[in-house]
Amino acid sequence: VQEVSPLRDQYHEELDAILASICQMANLVGAAMERATEALLAADLTLAEAVIDGDDDVDLVYRDVENRAFELLARQQPVASDLRCLITSLRMCSDIERMGDLALHVAKVARRRYPQRAIPDQLTDTVREMGRVAQQLAQKAGAVVDARDAARALELERDDDAMDALHRKLFEIILAPDWPGQIEEAIDITLCGRYYERFCDHAVSVARRVVYLVTGERQVPAATAAAG
Amino acid sequence: VQEVSPLRDQYHEELDAILASICQMANLVGAAMERATEALLAADLTLAEAVIDGDDDVDLVYRDVENRAFELLARQQPVASDLRCLITSLRMCSDIERMGDLALHVAKVARRRYPQRAIPDQLTDTVREMGRVAQQLAQKAGAVVDARDAARALELERDDDAMDALHRKLFEIILAPDWPGQIEEAIDITLCGRYYERFCDHAVSVARRVVYLVTGERQVPAATAAAG
Repeated sequence: VQEVSPLRDQYHEELDAILASICQMANLVGAAMERATEALLAADLTLAEAVIDGDDDVDLVYRDVENRAFELLARQQPVASDLRCLITSLRMCSDIERMGDLALHVAKVARRRYPQRAIPDQLTDTVREMGRVAQQLAQKAGAVVDARDAARALELERDDDAMDALHRKLFEIILAPDWPGQIEEAIDITLCGRYYERFCDHAVSVARRVVYLVTGERQVPAATAAAG
Repeated sequence: VQEVSPLRDQYHEELDAILASICQMANLVGAAMERATEALLAADLTLAEAVIDGDDDVDLVYRDVENRAFELLARQQPVASDLRCLITSLRMCSDIERMGDLALHVAKVARRRYPQRAIPDQLTDTVREMGRVAQQLAQKAGAVVDARDAARALELERDDDAMDALHRKLFEIILAPDWPGQIEEAIDITLCGRYYERFCDHAVSVARRVVYLVTGERQVPAATAAAG
């Protein structure tokens, strides 16, 4: 067993606590997207406003985690893999804070269109599924952060394919010649589709950072692999 | 005159060089958005593909700046305001890299709709103006980073109001009862509008980070000020 100094032990305890808080943030934004989706599909104003107000809680956790990471960085002056880990955790926080904003944007679409529903009947199933996939990706991203599970983190790339397929389906439905919707509906559907897609992109980004954190290998997204 | 050690001098020289590279990145993505707008309005496939390929250059500068900041952090172990400055510069890089992605997205809309134009005549002036404002905001954000000019950085909040107004105008035009466009056009216009808006949001974010870097005061966005 390698001997470690009590100081280093304290460092790793604090780092673990930071990663646990990041996991908690991911669960918060996952739940927010789930509730935003409900608000959107049911035109539920009260629920939409609860999601909008609730984003302040995500931001508070964000500031707290950020401050703790910053203090740890300044106090312990980590190097090499410890430094990488702390910088990476700061970036995961930013990703998840942004996911909270995107859940808020979905809730705002619900609020703006109230008492009408922004999502017409033909799209209800697809959007409900988008909400479910988004919530699951957020939760899984949080779990892989907490467990530093690089193998499971790699799965999120494939999990995200489900969102891409749903996103394409959304457009197929509203571009079909028999779709009876108006321009206003097309705008809201396009924006919501983008919010769900970006939400999942950030979850994948968190997972990529976990792989980097554990292995030191940067996951280059397939689309830009040629650049590296 | 306060005496400084040669080591600290070297640190500040490298930091200045990093900020200069960030300014260069901002100019690159500003030019990319300008050219993407031209490609979009003229349905110019060659130009669209040049913008798409050019994003690799932005990513290369991004990786280079990131590596230099990371090495400086590990080697010099800065504390207090020096540490804050370096972490902040890493975040500015991420913002600007994302701006490059958004310029690329605009170019991809142009490519996807080629040989048709994605933007109909009635919207040409508004979108051209969005491209101009976006390019100017990127350039100004870069300039305030390079000069560490907090006073001018604060102006970007107001400059961004012009983009918000143009974004609203875009929706007003396509929601007017006499707009002859189809759903496909509404989708592309909505997506492009979102790309320009987010591009400018990131430029404002860079400017806010300059204020933080210079004054140590975090600029809380008006919309979430209540949360702070």
